[in-house]
Amino acid sequence: MEQRTVFFLSDRTGITVEILGNSLLTQFEDVRFERVTIPFIKSEEELFKAIETVNKEAEKNQRRPIVFFSLVDEKMNRAFRDNANALTLDFFQAFISPLEKELGMKSAHAAGRSHSTHHADDYFRRMEAINFSQSHDDGATTRDLSQGEIILVGVSRCGKTPTALYLAMQFGIRAANFPLTPDDFVDRKLPATIRPLQSKLFGLTIDPYRLSQIRGERRPNSLYASLDNCRKEIRDAEALMTRERIPMLDTTSKSIEEIAVTIMQQAKLKRHIY
Amino acid sequence: MEQRTVFFLSDRTGITVEILGNSLLTQFEDVRFERVTIPFIKSEEELFKAIETVNKEAEKNQRRPIVFFSLVDEKMNRAFRDNANALTLDFFQAFISPLEKELGMKSAHAAGRSHSTHHADDYFRRMEAINFSQSHDDGATTRDLSQGEIILVGVSRCGKTPTALYLAMQFGIRAANFPLTPDDFVDRKLPATIRPLQSKLFGLTIDPYRLSQIRGERRPNSLYASLDNCRKEIRDAEALMTRERIPMLDTTSKSIEEIAVTIMQQAKLKRHIY
Repeated sequence: MEQRTVFFLSDRTGITVEILGNSLLTQFEDVRFERVTIPFIKSEEELFKAIETVNKEAEKNQRRPIVFFSLVDEKMNRAFRDNANALTLDFFQAFISPLEKELGMKSAHAAGRSHSTHHADDYFRRMEAINFSQSHDDGATTRDLSQGEIILVGVSRCGKTPTALYLAMQFGIRAANFPLTPDDFVDRKLPATIRPLQSKLFGLTIDPYRLSQIRGERRPNSLYASLDNCRKEIRDAEALMTRERIPMLDTTSKSIEEIAVTIMQQAKLKRHIY
Repeated sequence: MEQRTVFFLSDRTGITVEILGNSLLTQFEDVRFERVTIPFIKSEEELFKAIETVNKEAEKNQRRPIVFFSLVDEKMNRAFRDNANALTLDFFQAFISPLEKELGMKSAHAAGRSHSTHHADDYFRRMEAINFSQSHDDGATTRDLSQGEIILVGVSRCGKTPTALYLAMQFGIRAANFPLTPDDFVDRKLPATIRPLQSKLFGLTIDPYRLSQIRGERRPNSLYASLDNCRKEIRDAEALMTRERIPMLDTTSKSIEEIAVTIMQQAKLKRHIY
């Protein structure tokens, strides 16, 4: 299998170039990529250390590395291109000029201003949402539950916790989650705590086989994880949600991102942060 | 203030184009951007609905919108360019050809394969890390604490919870967090539970004034949130961490992303997922 080294170089966290780069790399399934991130490149000294690392890798592999690159400083930008033995893919460079032209103004980069400006409101909003989602995980507390914007429901391990935390982290949404348990299925009704909040409920469901796998990772050979039990719980949970007209999403073959964005769309939630 | 509408259009979640687009838009602080995301554009019908939305916006504002765009299907790609009245910034288009050339092969896109392939290992790893971090929040449980890769310590509301969850979500790191409280400062030593795990501890600290603000949002006019109390707690916590030789990071003017990446770097943690 073809192997290539990929660098993510940034004067900030590198997360943007990583996300961008990885979404492109998934297009090449027959190549094994070795990934290295070098964040917070602020000085020329740090830049030249990075260039050295890249060039050593090129020599070692007899192949130039692929570099996803984001340094706003133009001088450092040029220094990299002039000295690094790499395919450099620079999204900042590629898009900032057309944007400047369209908006009829220079970017902060060109004017030498900082671009890491912090929006205190966004920060608070995000923190608050994360803390809300964290403290309202799995029905841990019912205090202030009504202040949630959405309450995810479903059987244990169907994906509620990661989805709620992602909604909070990425979009600033106060997302609680509440388990549906065999007791509720016997009663054939929603838990009393969430019944008055029905308009905020959003159901998650999952293929029983997959659920059995996930539960088995935590508690192998348990009744809890058995395929029979998972089948029964899912069947009962889906029946309950259908009866109560709760929107329902199958998480089986979806990533957390896909689940979260689908919920945003279907529940018509507005994101609070970008 | 200049105002422009920005669209994020994608055949997937749109999160990649949002992150990319926003990192560019922060370069233009004098423009107010109105943002609209249209995810999961899978059919031509959905595409033409999106084009209509974009064109209506152009007419309404007498300004063409800016569109960050990611559709891998070439036919739909062309249809958009031919029919939308917008500045289209398409990172997929811009970078996929140089990558194909460099790797000497066609991308899955060109060959018509799906690019949303799921890596089950990554999925499990991420889920497991999120569940670990969630259940080991704020010292909630000490069971399996030693299986954490890192344990964040610091006073209440200094940023431990969001950071730990971000480390889990983004990098698949099992990150616990444990509070340092006035009791520990009286004892002048670390809580017994975390003492044996000292090599995994990483301290967060924060400006007392900022801490007082954050605590005040939750409990206004409390002793807990008072500037005097915050000053004392921070001073004591920093003294304790210094004595115990715990690495320490000031979170005051940093985003969660910056805090998380700095910890990854300083603690030499290896990310498990990309």
